[in-house]
Amino acid sequence: MFGCLVAGRLVQAAPQQVAEDKFVFDLPDYENINHVVVFMLGTIPFPEGMGGSVYFCYPDPSGLAVWQLLGFVTNEKPSAIFKISGLKSGKGSEHPFGAMNLPQTPTVAQIGISVELLESLAQQTPVANAAVSSVDSFTEFTQKMLDNFYNFASSFAVTQAQMTPNPSEAFIPANVVLKW
Amino acid sequence: MFGCLVAGRLVQAAPQQVAEDKFVFDLPDYENINHVVVFMLGTIPFPEGMGGSVYFCYPDPSGLAVWQLLGFVTNEKPSAIFKISGLKSGKGSEHPFGAMNLPQTPTVAQIGISVELLESLAQQTPVANAAVSSVDSFTEFTQKMLDNFYNFASSFAVTQAQMTPNPSEAFIPANVVLKW
Repeated sequence: MFGCLVAGRLVQAAPQQVAEDKFVFDLPDYENINHVVVFMLGTIPFPEGMGGSVYFCYPDPSGLAVWQLLGFVTNEKPSAIFKISGLKSGKGSEHPFGAMNLPQTPTVAQIGISVELLESLAQQTPVANAAVSSVDSFTEFTQKMLDNFYNFASSFAVTQAQMTPNPSEAFIPANVVLKW
Repeated sequence: MFGCLVAGRLVQAAPQQVAEDKFVFDLPDYENINHVVVFMLGTIPFPEGMGGSVYFCYPDPSGLAVWQLLGFVTNEKPSAIFKISGLKSGKGSEHPFGAMNLPQTPTVAQIGISVELLESLAQQTPVANAAVSSVDSFTEFTQKMLDNFYNFASSFAVTQAQMTPNPSEAFIPANVVLKW
């Protein structure tokens, strides 16, 4: 029903089914993974009114599983690309894999897919910046980075009246930063 | 042998074989495509010493095919994610699909895969910023953007001695930009 592809590696099309509605792919050597693609194979659609929540699971330093909600796949949007390289220090979120005690190996992470009601999915909030499958999210990410920069740089802004005498230090007019 | 996946859509695993060593996937409604994943199915590897160059082909306003080299897949790196949303105004590059006269429809683009010698692939240069499948390329992209910004902002830099009197204009010390 599902496929999983780590950018640069061979596709996986045979998840481990850990419950009637839960599927898990192993991601060996996950420290060297940047993007993961999760997709429906196109053979079996979700039952009417159902979809899949997609989780990334990695072992924390003490070997406990940390789960993070990446996003969703549905019959209407049967594939998604997620960027997981920034998530490994993030906090875990609520997840439906709690009782499964997947074996944790220090270098192996997992992608978990939980089949749930669409109404249930609509109430779940994925971690920020994981989805890279739309133009919007990429543009928003870049814009956010530039906003952060402007806020950061502005905190150092001075007017000429406030400057301490040091004629050799270079200054950039703040409106140049804003225009860029 | 190959699969192709547009982020958000169903996977395609049956390219049109337009020559013994050339394969083409159609990308309908390509104006709304951001990322494309190209991967080997894992069933048949490339012959020893061979790999695939991956091209994006879209119709220019007059209906002619414009081909751009996105990158490569090989037995060692059997999948890649490409960002095509920034390419639609770019120039075409040399390509091996010249004589094929693929039918061009205004809203349909193509992914073309050409099986070639690895030595031949090594001499080809993909268009900039298409590959998003490795941490390096993303980091490089971000770094390049920041370098561009610093170069841009620095061209406006002044020292206090050069400033015209305007005590209300805000300035940012240039070393703040560098440190960030």
